[in-house]
Amino acid sequence: MNKPFSDKLRAVEPYTPGEQSKNNDIIKLNANENPYPPSPKVIEAIKGFEAEKLCLYPSSSAYALTEALAQYHGLDVNQVFVGNGSDEVIALSYLAFFNSDKPIFFPDITYSFYPVWCRLFNVPYETKSVDKNFIINPKDYYSANGGVILPNPNAPTGISEGRGFIEDILDHNRDVIVIIDEAYVDFGGYSAIELINKYDNLIVVQTFSKSRSLAGMRIGAAFGSAELISLLKAVKNCYNSYPIDSVAIAAGVASVEDDAYFKNTINKVIRTRERFSQELKGLGFTVFPSHSNFVFASKPDVNAKSLFEAAKKENIYIRYFDLPRIDNFLRITIGTDEQMDIFLNFIKRYLSSLSGC
Amino acid sequence: MNKPFSDKLRAVEPYTPGEQSKNNDIIKLNANENPYPPSPKVIEAIKGFEAEKLCLYPSSSAYALTEALAQYHGLDVNQVFVGNGSDEVIALSYLAFFNSDKPIFFPDITYSFYPVWCRLFNVPYETKSVDKNFIINPKDYYSANGGVILPNPNAPTGISEGRGFIEDILDHNRDVIVIIDEAYVDFGGYSAIELINKYDNLIVVQTFSKSRSLAGMRIGAAFGSAELISLLKAVKNCYNSYPIDSVAIAAGVASVEDDAYFKNTINKVIRTRERFSQELKGLGFTVFPSHSNFVFASKPDVNAKSLFEAAKKENIYIRYFDLPRIDNFLRITIGTDEQMDIFLNFIKRYLSSLSGC
Repeated sequence: MNKPFSDKLRAVEPYTPGEQSKNNDIIKLNANENPYPPSPKVIEAIKGFEAEKLCLYPSSSAYALTEALAQYHGLDVNQVFVGNGSDEVIALSYLAFFNSDKPIFFPDITYSFYPVWCRLFNVPYETKSVDKNFIINPKDYYSANGGVILPNPNAPTGISEGRGFIEDILDHNRDVIVIIDEAYVDFGGYSAIELINKYDNLIVVQTFSKSRSLAGMRIGAAFGSAELISLLKAVKNCYNSYPIDSVAIAAGVASVEDDAYFKNTINKVIRTRERFSQELKGLGFTVFPSHSNFVFASKPDVNAKSLFEAAKKENIYIRYFDLPRIDNFLRITIGTDEQMDIFLNFIKRYLSSLSGC
Repeated sequence: MNKPFSDKLRAVEPYTPGEQSKNNDIIKLNANENPYPPSPKVIEAIKGFEAEKLCLYPSSSAYALTEALAQYHGLDVNQVFVGNGSDEVIALSYLAFFNSDKPIFFPDITYSFYPVWCRLFNVPYETKSVDKNFIINPKDYYSANGGVILPNPNAPTGISEGRGFIEDILDHNRDVIVIIDEAYVDFGGYSAIELINKYDNLIVVQTFSKSRSLAGMRIGAAFGSAELISLLKAVKNCYNSYPIDSVAIAAGVASVEDDAYFKNTINKVIRTRERFSQELKGLGFTVFPSHSNFVFASKPDVNAKSLFEAAKKENIYIRYFDLPRIDNFLRITIGTDEQMDIFLNFIKRYLSSLSGC
């Protein structure tokens, strides 16, 4: 572009989410979506929503939803924040909490949106290498920094850490805010929500997109001290007064209220994940122990990118990252048992086609 | 707050939207909401939405909605952007287009969110005084600046400018981006959308919250050259991949498709506005010529703040701004004829109670 105003324009490199397709016949294992629909109570809440009232603005704080979440987690309502997906919640948290000249720290292998927000908001950052088994070393996070963001379980590895690890990080970072991104925690990880009343430097972020089958509804949440949450609300109110629409608020409340459905769905995904992981290992893959709704796998003698492309040709979408250290790995979302069987059959055919050469 | 991490926290002064109330009996004329429900086609789209599919992410660009808007306005789909309400669209536009050391310009009497975004994103700004009749002087916008944002019609005055005025501003600012915020344009203002193919420095922002009765659904849009829109999309994808949920996309498309309902609703609001303005003038108020769904009025011998508070006691909510130059004015949203009659009766009683003292 060579326009008189070119110097005022922002050139940025966005995060690339898992590909969407208009083709309904694909087996979509590339965006960590839940293969099961949301709770029937959610569906009822949407169909029964008084749409005539949409002429009015929603509650700016999505009050009913913060209240439902507070009750669910045994917190005070002023310890809860909701936003337009956990991506928005994290973006606003950067603006609210990462305001230092020192770099924020996060792992080199992690959610690839973290550095994108740093560049968007001019937040300096430094990545810390995970070890060869993709394990985070908490000591890497002891030195002076402007804040810490860690996903637990980590993505795209699925590896989860426990309370001792999280407290170690929190104890060694009392002078900054530590954000624990628990997008996948419901699939068997350790949640730091219980630490909120113990650590005033902790923010926990969760999402309705994975375990609650509501990726299409855009709901994320943050939990922290009333002080930190009030700052996050103030920043949100400097960006957009009403990020959650009224239908989403009603859907979110219905989801939180149907705990039996929620737990049942999670258990189905976990059972499928464990079986699928075993079968994949049986085919010679290295599969990291996952506490999420995906597995991260590699077979040293098989080119991951070629396998990814071959799967796509058969309408099976998985995720491949062309990034240092993980460019021979695949991230495979856990779908239904039927979907995973189709994928396993594809892999078997693919591997025998290789050995047959 | 006196915590070890206090220096990393952001203290901000947010925009304050018109008060919401849990009381259903109030007459709500304080947030420029539409008193009529959205189109029956919108309501059908929500009730008929396949909520089972909410386990999947929405289209990141809300493609179906950008396509509907492109067709509606005779533009190419890549000249259209949608976001979570026009507030988010403007916030992202600041990040995409206002990146200069020079201040951006906007009127001193205008939408009070403009300086809030400047402070959030560290964008320098300078306000330009409107004249004593609240008219914007285009010459004030000729000098060197980092960008211009103007609402047309202006808020909270409701005053609208025509094509000559807009082209004057655009011609004198070819080296920056000019954002025309048309939140209220459908109620009789001049839309600069027809200028998009003529001026590559123009961004027009609109919203579904007022004329389309969808404040509760959070949909805003930007129109501009394919080049500018692609930059705006890239910035959006650095903040949040999916700001519009799947139900909102379906509702938005249904709204755009039902043009007869849209025009009928607008005409009802305009007829009520004209009658209400006349009656208010008859009671001795100065009422500015409005091309929006509100009027801005003042009666020099009546204290606006006291009237605002007295109305609130009778469950009639209007808007009062305790700001320089406009602290004896009231902004009154146009409701139904019945609502405006109740308000007029209140005013008559209030005025006679004053003269009776």
